[in-house]
Amino acid sequence: MAADKRYLILAEGRSDDPHYGKTMRGVLRYRRDDVVAVLDSTRAGQTENGVPVVGSVADSLALGPTTALVGVATQGGRFPPEWIAILRACVEHGLDVENGLHVFLSEDSMLRELADRRGVELRDLRRPPSELSTATGENLSVDATIVLTVGSDCAIGKMTVSLELDLEARRRGLRSVFVPTGQTGIAIAGWGISVDAVVADFLAGAAERLVVEGAARGDLLWVEGQGAILHPVYSGVTLGLIHGSAPQLYVLCHQAGLTEIEGVGGGPHPIPPLSELVELHERISLPARPARVVCVAVNTRGLDDVTARDAVASAEAETGLPADDPVRFGAGRLLDAVVGALES
Amino acid sequence: MAADKRYLILAEGRSDDPHYGKTMRGVLRYRRDDVVAVLDSTRAGQTENGVPVVGSVADSLALGPTTALVGVATQGGRFPPEWIAILRACVEHGLDVENGLHVFLSEDSMLRELADRRGVELRDLRRPPSELSTATGENLSVDATIVLTVGSDCAIGKMTVSLELDLEARRRGLRSVFVPTGQTGIAIAGWGISVDAVVADFLAGAAERLVVEGAARGDLLWVEGQGAILHPVYSGVTLGLIHGSAPQLYVLCHQAGLTEIEGVGGGPHPIPPLSELVELHERISLPARPARVVCVAVNTRGLDDVTARDAVASAEAETGLPADDPVRFGAGRLLDAVVGALES
Repeated sequence: MAADKRYLILAEGRSDDPHYGKTMRGVLRYRRDDVVAVLDSTRAGQTENGVPVVGSVADSLALGPTTALVGVATQGGRFPPEWIAILRACVEHGLDVENGLHVFLSEDSMLRELADRRGVELRDLRRPPSELSTATGENLSVDATIVLTVGSDCAIGKMTVSLELDLEARRRGLRSVFVPTGQTGIAIAGWGISVDAVVADFLAGAAERLVVEGAARGDLLWVEGQGAILHPVYSGVTLGLIHGSAPQLYVLCHQAGLTEIEGVGGGPHPIPPLSELVELHERISLPARPARVVCVAVNTRGLDDVTARDAVASAEAETGLPADDPVRFGAGRLLDAVVGALES
Repeated sequence: MAADKRYLILAEGRSDDPHYGKTMRGVLRYRRDDVVAVLDSTRAGQTENGVPVVGSVADSLALGPTTALVGVATQGGRFPPEWIAILRACVEHGLDVENGLHVFLSEDSMLRELADRRGVELRDLRRPPSELSTATGENLSVDATIVLTVGSDCAIGKMTVSLELDLEARRRGLRSVFVPTGQTGIAIAGWGISVDAVVADFLAGAAERLVVEGAARGDLLWVEGQGAILHPVYSGVTLGLIHGSAPQLYVLCHQAGLTEIEGVGGGPHPIPPLSELVELHERISLPARPARVVCVAVNTRGLDDVTARDAVASAEAETGLPADDPVRFGAGRLLDAVVGALES
């Protein structure tokens, strides 16, 4: 993880909203030590996950932030006037600003000019590197174990599963690296490429570059998955990431009880049985890089403990693979499955 | 097909090069009536496919071109000085210019300024429309039969197969439409989106838009396929196109004798048996839009007639589906398979 940065998380009006704060929650969970405050004028003086909530940028300065991070999705993904005012205040107070929304800060000419004058950086985490290329095949000679999270739908916790497995692997002393492929992962890890934002031709090339860079950082790579192989909207990103990151192993992620892909028109879009998803991922892997699903991560959020254990047991029974909810019950069992596969 | 345009095909130094003239050859084959001349100063006075070759833009003017089309790939996909001179001459003589290379004409500020002054258009066929979005599900309610060409590799003739089937269907009086997804197809048909040039998030959205637009033009849509589902570099584009164009039927394209995906590092990248490719495409189709492979198009270029017939027969035996080479033996048999599937 990148050091030195001390974050002020910008979450105006939404710091306790369960739907729009994926980045804030991810950073608070996996990078808590680097966060000095959350900005939300509607909750000034309270705390969020033990972190002080401040009402203005000026109020945070005593805590020594270096970097403001846009931590919540704004209405329509754009920056309304009150947000522009906050962003300007950050820049005026000498903070770099990091942003993972679709709209780019650096395209606001007034803000950019102000940032130039103040000598601070505006970092748009979804902006792809300018010099991407098509995949070269270097991914297939990377000297590392590559584990990709895949799933039955978007937004069911693939990033979280990768992060939990990385954390547990590092606890065990393995040279483990989380490889970020989306804006929240990038905000957490301090590097990466938002693969869904690259030109389609360069999808596998971007993923290849990430595993090449990951292998320079460690030898057990947890690549953050994107989308789903049967997702009507994002499957192209998913398959480009599968072939470009060239994993030897998959962790299949599923949300307990989910039977249809959500939030997509033209449906219903039923999710096939997990055992079919296991087989489909293995068959769609490159012949030059056979890959297998070694375990199933079950997201049991919202279930009581008994129902959660049942959901895990039923995923095991259905697939014949070890299953667990790494957030709820710890990542040990899934990590054992991965390490066991490496040794076998 | 768009009317009114009269093309001068720019092919300087490469008008008889078998490797770099895909656009020129496609337009000459499927839009011959709209081509007035080919420009190649190294072959001035000769003919190419019966079309006069001229040595300069000025020499073509008597033939009445309205539009210059970049017909060959240049070295490294960029425009060297001699090409810039030709492009300027086109603009100075009042011709619009169409270009399907990766480098955009409209990013050459001198050329753009000249074009503005002369009131002509520079059309970069690979430039995506600016207002693309993610797929909405509208693709699944399009009132048309959608047939997508898929294949065992890139560059084995998927576009050609779609064009031949469209031509044959129109000969039979069907309201048939070729739906272009790449620069050559766009140059031929006069509309379309180069799906590999869009931002990855919008892959399925771009494909959806193409079939929605196609359905406004006819009711039997031949969508030009891209890449291959097991192509290490371009599979993301392929799957985004599969799910976004939402075909009911596939035509599987294969080049006789090809056993490995070509031109990709990290290999060998073996091509699975055709019967496996048939099954894989059917299984990777959206549950909300089941699709099946109805026939196999075999590219037998370079084989003698007996060997070609053997290759076709062996594709039939292997898959249990009708097979043929539509370029060599006509598209009738494959079209029969598609029409039969519609009626069954």
